[in-house]
Amino acid sequence: MTETRTETDSFGPLEVPTDKYWGAQTQRSIMNFPIGWEKQPVAIVRALGVIKKACAMANKESGKLDAKIADAVIQAAGEVFEGKFDDNFPLVVWQTGSGTQSNMNSNEVIANRAIEIMGGVIGSKDPVHPNDHCNMGQSSNDTFPTAMHIAAAMTTRDVLLPGLRKLLAGLEAKSEEFKDIIKIGRTHTQDATPLTLGQEFGGYAHQIRQGIARIEAALPGIYELAQGGTAVGTGLNTQHGWGEKVAANMAEITGLPFVTAPNKFEALAAHDAMVFMSGALATTAGAMYKIANDIRFLGSGPRSGLGELILPENEPGSSIMPGKVNPTQAEAMTQVAAHVMGNDAAMKFAGSQGHFELNVYNPMMSYNLLQSMQLLGDVADSFTERMLNGIKANEPRIDKLMKESLMLVTALAPTIGYDNATKVAKTAHKNGTTLKEEAIALGFVDEATFDAVVRPEQMIGPKD
Amino acid sequence: MTETRTETDSFGPLEVPTDKYWGAQTQRSIMNFPIGWEKQPVAIVRALGVIKKACAMANKESGKLDAKIADAVIQAAGEVFEGKFDDNFPLVVWQTGSGTQSNMNSNEVIANRAIEIMGGVIGSKDPVHPNDHCNMGQSSNDTFPTAMHIAAAMTTRDVLLPGLRKLLAGLEAKSEEFKDIIKIGRTHTQDATPLTLGQEFGGYAHQIRQGIARIEAALPGIYELAQGGTAVGTGLNTQHGWGEKVAANMAEITGLPFVTAPNKFEALAAHDAMVFMSGALATTAGAMYKIANDIRFLGSGPRSGLGELILPENEPGSSIMPGKVNPTQAEAMTQVAAHVMGNDAAMKFAGSQGHFELNVYNPMMSYNLLQSMQLLGDVADSFTERMLNGIKANEPRIDKLMKESLMLVTALAPTIGYDNATKVAKTAHKNGTTLKEEAIALGFVDEATFDAVVRPEQMIGPKD
Amino acid sequence: MTETRTETDSFGPLEVPTDKYWGAQTQRSIMNFPIGWEKQPVAIVRALGVIKKACAMANKESGKLDAKIADAVIQAAGEVFEGKFDDNFPLVVWQTGSGTQSNMNSNEVIANRAIEIMGGVIGSKDPVHPNDHCNMGQSSNDTFPTAMHIAAAMTTRDVLLPGLRKLLAGLEAKSEEFKDIIKIGRTHTQDATPLTLGQEFGGYAHQIRQGIARIEAALPGIYELAQGGTAVGTGLNTQHGWGEKVAANMAEITGLPFVTAPNKFEALAAHDAMVFMSGALATTAGAMYKIANDIRFLGSGPRSGLGELILPENEPGSSIMPGKVNPTQAEAMTQVAAHVMGNDAAMKFAGSQGHFELNVYNPMMSYNLLQSMQLLGDVADSFTERMLNGIKANEPRIDKLMKESLMLVTALAPTIGYDNATKVAKTAHKNGTTLKEEAIALGFVDEATFDAVVRPEQMIGPKD
Amino acid sequence: MTETRTETDSFGPLEVPTDKYWGAQTQRSIMNFPIGWEKQPVAIVRALGVIKKACAMANKESGKLDAKIADAVIQAAGEVFEGKFDDNFPLVVWQTGSGTQSNMNSNEVIANRAIEIMGGVIGSKDPVHPNDHCNMGQSSNDTFPTAMHIAAAMTTRDVLLPGLRKLLAGLEAKSEEFKDIIKIGRTHTQDATPLTLGQEFGGYAHQIRQGIARIEAALPGIYELAQGGTAVGTGLNTQHGWGEKVAANMAEITGLPFVTAPNKFEALAAHDAMVFMSGALATTAGAMYKIANDIRFLGSGPRSGLGELILPENEPGSSIMPGKVNPTQAEAMTQVAAHVMGNDAAMKFAGSQGHFELNVYNPMMSYNLLQSMQLLGDVADSFTERMLNGIKANEPRIDKLMKESLMLVTALAPTIGYDNATKVAKTAHKNGTTLKEEAIALGFVDEATFDAVVRPEQMIGPKD
Repeated sequence: MTETRTETDSFGPLEVPTDKYWGAQTQRSIMNFPIGWEKQPVAIVRALGVIKKACAMANKESGKLDAKIADAVIQAAGEVFEGKFDDNFPLVVWQTGSGTQSNMNSNEVIANRAIEIMGGVIGSKDPVHPNDHCNMGQSSNDTFPTAMHIAAAMTTRDVLLPGLRKLLAGLEAKSEEFKDIIKIGRTHTQDATPLTLGQEFGGYAHQIRQGIARIEAALPGIYELAQGGTAVGTGLNTQHGWGEKVAANMAEITGLPFVTAPNKFEALAAHDAMVFMSGALATTAGAMYKIANDIRFLGSGPRSGLGELILPENEPGSSIMPGKVNPTQAEAMTQVAAHVMGNDAAMKFAGSQGHFELNVYNPMMSYNLLQSMQLLGDVADSFTERMLNGIKANEPRIDKLMKESLMLVTALAPTIGYDNATKVAKTAHKNGTTLKEEAIALGFVDEATFDAVVRPEQMIGPKD
Repeated sequence: MTETRTETDSFGPLEVPTDKYWGAQTQRSIMNFPIGWEKQPVAIVRALGVIKKACAMANKESGKLDAKIADAVIQAAGEVFEGKFDDNFPLVVWQTGSGTQSNMNSNEVIANRAIEIMGGVIGSKDPVHPNDHCNMGQSSNDTFPTAMHIAAAMTTRDVLLPGLRKLLAGLEAKSEEFKDIIKIGRTHTQDATPLTLGQEFGGYAHQIRQGIARIEAALPGIYELAQGGTAVGTGLNTQHGWGEKVAANMAEITGLPFVTAPNKFEALAAHDAMVFMSGALATTAGAMYKIANDIRFLGSGPRSGLGELILPENEPGSSIMPGKVNPTQAEAMTQVAAHVMGNDAAMKFAGSQGHFELNVYNPMMSYNLLQSMQLLGDVADSFTERMLNGIKANEPRIDKLMKESLMLVTALAPTIGYDNATKVAKTAHKNGTTLKEEAIALGFVDEATFDAVVRPEQMIGPKD
Repeated sequence: MTETRTETDSFGPLEVPTDKYWGAQTQRSIMNFPIGWEKQPVAIVRALGVIKKACAMANKESGKLDAKIADAVIQAAGEVFEGKFDDNFPLVVWQTGSGTQSNMNSNEVIANRAIEIMGGVIGSKDPVHPNDHCNMGQSSNDTFPTAMHIAAAMTTRDVLLPGLRKLLAGLEAKSEEFKDIIKIGRTHTQDATPLTLGQEFGGYAHQIRQGIARIEAALPGIYELAQGGTAVGTGLNTQHGWGEKVAANMAEITGLPFVTAPNKFEALAAHDAMVFMSGALATTAGAMYKIANDIRFLGSGPRSGLGELILPENEPGSSIMPGKVNPTQAEAMTQVAAHVMGNDAAMKFAGSQGHFELNVYNPMMSYNLLQSMQLLGDVADSFTERMLNGIKANEPRIDKLMKESLMLVTALAPTIGYDNATKVAKTAHKNGTTLKEEAIALGFVDEATFDAVVRPEQMIGPKD
Repeated sequence: MTETRTETDSFGPLEVPTDKYWGAQTQRSIMNFPIGWEKQPVAIVRALGVIKKACAMANKESGKLDAKIADAVIQAAGEVFEGKFDDNFPLVVWQTGSGTQSNMNSNEVIANRAIEIMGGVIGSKDPVHPNDHCNMGQSSNDTFPTAMHIAAAMTTRDVLLPGLRKLLAGLEAKSEEFKDIIKIGRTHTQDATPLTLGQEFGGYAHQIRQGIARIEAALPGIYELAQGGTAVGTGLNTQHGWGEKVAANMAEITGLPFVTAPNKFEALAAHDAMVFMSGALATTAGAMYKIANDIRFLGSGPRSGLGELILPENEPGSSIMPGKVNPTQAEAMTQVAAHVMGNDAAMKFAGSQGHFELNVYNPMMSYNLLQSMQLLGDVADSFTERMLNGIKANEPRIDKLMKESLMLVTALAPTIGYDNATKVAKTAHKNGTTLKEEAIALGFVDEATFDAVVRPEQMIGPKD
């Protein structure tokens, strides 16, 4: 049996475990929402620490909050930010849509920890009250959206962008490594004119480069914080300049360029900045999907596939087929991409469903966005390290496939016309012969002209 | 420092924690897929236990598998099914798309546990080998899809349908309780002709009744199991009748009517049955969304909303607004519904992306489907218990709103014609008067006729 | 300049073109909704003809509607059903969400045509009134959902299912034609154990067979008609038995098994039956996607792809690459599939957004569902006729790829064990040799045993 | 019977209508793709005119193309751009995924028109050949993606942004008009602290302002053109500087700041820029959804809803309920928004599905994106003109609802503490009394203090 103490909220007393700092509202939420297993992400917990610290600093400075209480709250909130109380945030995602209960969870933990620091009795709300002191000048309605933005910004900086930049660097390195390998192009999955393998990877690199740029283009909206809007966006129970002040404090604590949102009504009633970010994530996920899918097809085989790439072997691939090796990192990446598209659909839906002064899909939206960020960053890192960096070109096979291609005929078209070139290609296809044989046999060119014109190494760029 | 032992797979030796039963392939997957936090759901783990037990039973019966080994495997697999080894399944969702590593996780845990039962040395693969014995007649390619179906079927029976049936019963009870309360109808969010509050809840009940029927209509496809297809659907390395036999064993173990899939090629290369089930879930989620959203609007207030329903008060609603109470269970339900729609989009996408003989989105698809099932079942239960069952009708307000409505004029239209009835309603609206006053003033009816025709209690159904 | 006449509604007079039968409400909608180009689908127009005819028949029979007026309305509505007035339905999809304006469009066209039949003055509403007579016992709120269901049922019968059944027949024929061609299997896009090409196409066929079954499982909900609910579901201004009567009439007119919806409140406030059907469509679209994508990859080349299938050549494939031929029918099919998934997301969203007694996403939902049905039916037909039926197997290449495969080693595993078999495959892969050479060299089997065990023709099914 | 002439492509001769300019490849596409009704959007046709003109200008300047032929092509292409040949583009969306057939449609129409200009025989390909001259230096693979971007950019400039800016201006005007009207706020659909109606509309305005900014942030990617990549991105059969030159010509022709894409491989193989734009559109659609939905609820009634806004009456709202008026423009807007979300899901899906050097979802993707743009622009315009601009505040009702609200108690909390303020609100709620009565009765404040503290006009912003 767990030892308990009594905590109280306006609905009455409740028993909570003695070894936890949370209070009655947190405990009540545990009881009222036995739904799923998805806990509030740790990034949200840490962000609540940032907020409570920043607000207490501002309240101390303005004199609204007693300095001693403020100091204890600042210390306790700082500990939440540092991760010392991650296990004191037991609430699930599927709670009140405002995230009020998780905001109160942070208020209660910080109040009790601050009481402890000040030598008081945990659960007494004295000398530190979860609402009057820890939530001073705040409402869940501005605090939780602020936590969502802070958590998203930190995860972008710490997980998402590092992963994507590693992937970009890996693709750029392969593009350089493969720059002299001429290969057949494929359009409509069918043979087409040649390009270099480096150009192909260069296209992949550009997709990720642009993906990063799109995420960065969506970040300024994330840096805008709702804090200061309080209950409905008016800033009731705050002072002029409060929003700017606490945003500055949060920027200082996190090292991220947070600013106060220019319109707090919008910041509470809508999450368009997060929806737009989700679109940037899903766009980038689509790019990652395309790249991973191409690579597994180019590396298909070992004997009966396209076989142009040799992929690293990381683990046994089959429980029944001995010796089988599979492109498992590409599979992880495409699975993540598919999942992120689902999350994006959920974000779009929920983002449109605010009513009047509040959107009440907060925990669900931040769960989706943060999960997408974490997964994309993680999988980009793992894919780069365990697959991309180890890819080798199967040059003999690449060369063979390229040289047999009928689409080299395209180089002839400016000389003999599209219709004649078509005849050459179709005849060679029908007869299983070479383009050169048929071009000469059909009387369109002589051998010297053919050799001068149909040169793969001159087909990989514009003419001078 | 954790104590370890050495386990081996075809890629070499690896250290694994001594207190765990998993082997080298599981450990290798831990190392190769540091992606996200989402573990394989417990329902998948338990389903793998069902499969391994059922297959060992069949292999014992056919004499392919030594009886003593078989007995040990059956016991060990049974323990996995019973949940004794949940903490021995550490792998994440974002692994190989076939789920091979989780299949091997089960093979390794069961092999080592069976070795232990037989008095052998854990990690020695002797006398029980994870592939040759635990995976006998199986491939991940049929085993994991089978686990997906078993897990989905068990979650449907144990969580999803009980939750939805409780919700249906709750709605039916309210429909009966409110059957004599006549209220204004609303179409386009605007005042319309009356109905009973019982009829309104009866519509909700019918939505859920149909949702359950749709889920049940999707179940037969889930009951079809891929087991027996082995590597590519041919059933290589199995015997004739194996699929039928193991499906029967699985049915016996779980009490669910599993059968062998009629076409194993389809069962490996596609997950259409799960995609279709996801569509049934999302349809039902949409119904739940509509119901929860209606109820929060009908219960809006306490003083400035529609105010027709009095909703239970479960917890403090605001960290800043004292005394505020919010429809939090409806918010949990609508958040779940939005999330399930995202999951459905991910299912649709991934389901279309199989290549040739295999769809490699297995762990991601089962994660999405099982999460949707769990969340819908849980939230249906919680919403019913903590919100629906406690709803009271605010009869004085309902009566007042209904009687003031201009749309009662519709009852007049068959008598005085649509165009004249329009004049009555528009004039009353303009003048802020009653329909009766204006109908008489405009000379269309006398008072007696009006009173005889415009009777809300006769407007709630067809005429005799 | 168009010649006009004056028509009137409760908002006043409007000029409408003399050569059209619509009235003031239709004209007003043209003016008020200059949004997009998407007109109400023809199937909706025809369905409104069915409804108006069926209702007038019932109203005549009950004596509520004067027999002469009824006869004229029945004739005029019949003409709408037959398509004689398709060009009299100019309204766009993006109008009132109830579809009221399209319902009034049908009332106005039928009233004026009936007036014409009876020798009256078009636009006079005499002797036939669009509301009092053509809409008798009806509301847009039951009529438009009924039209949605009728249009969906007719399109399913006339376009969707014929297309899918043709595709199924085509796949079954190829499965039979290719039943003796043994080919390499591919899982994870990598070489796997063999199967027959007929088995591969048999898997495709089963996907479509199940797709058809899923659509059929969703049809009973579509056959349930809202008619009889009138304004809010109560059936106000109808008589007992009206819903049953008009549904029977509609069944007779269309030859489809329509019945009256068991709960009219649900039938107006929700469109779950259509959402569920959309899920069945999207599931089938995913199946079609997989099939078309496989076929274009199996037919990739002509020289540098997998090249197992020879695809029909239908048109020049490139404006720059002479002689190029592309799998364009597969591209049409995959584009349709992707689009249908988008439509499904829109259906899920809109289906959840009803408020109180009405869902006001009617025209948008029927547009999406009917478009999905038409596109899937059309593309299934075209793909079958122009691609599938003309596919030939490239047998020499199929045989070569199959025989070289290292995954034939799987047949050895039951004899020499998984671990030894792995060594054989890995060594052959490393040395570029054959399985047989390495199996013997490693001392695991002799030649006779190898030849007896590794026989592709015995790997395509369970052992006896 | 239509009169025809014979046109020829590499597959042979075909009859085409004499009064049309298209050739054999267009006609062949008509025959091969009888799928759906969705034609290539007009914006695509016009954009192809821009491209063909710009390329002929560059080819003339470089001397690659005979000056007389060039002049005729320039004139003919200019006429396509101006809309003179819209009815010569009969192809559907569901064709080859590269859009090759629509590119050839433009080549054929322009070639025949140029032949006509030069006095030749239509259909003779002399002196102007559709491939050799009209398509010189081009491939469908760069041309069609270029057309997609040009069409999107023109539609953004001409339809989308004007519509959104009009909506923004309308919202700003209402925000100003309503700036002194204090009303009750609503969070969780429940009564909350007050704000002004102007603040509420100001939040809406900010959502649209940001939506416009997001679309503008996505435009630079749209301004990057694939032209110059030709078949696979290499620029084969072009000259150095060609891409820059033709982009400059297209910029001049359209007045839009087009530039050549920095990486042509990415520009052919992916459509990430369009996917990202789709995300911006869907985000804005979500904002429009929220605004329209709020407005219909705030304007709900006329007697039994929230009734704070008086909405313009545009047309009769019901075919059965006389005098009913509905928020139809809001319904059009929310239907469009739901549809745009579906289009976005389709874009995300298709954008991820490129293979190797080409994404073959071109016509489907441009159809979706252009439809979203057109619908959002049109509905923004219509909603503003026919609903937003005519909205009036129902001031007496707004004032009444605000003054009765229990949430004014929030102003008391800083004075008497959260817990005591909760008691006041709960007691007043229970007793149906006022906050002032209970605050005094409970002994927390005297009347003077209450009156000094609880002042709605001081609750709509931070304290000084």
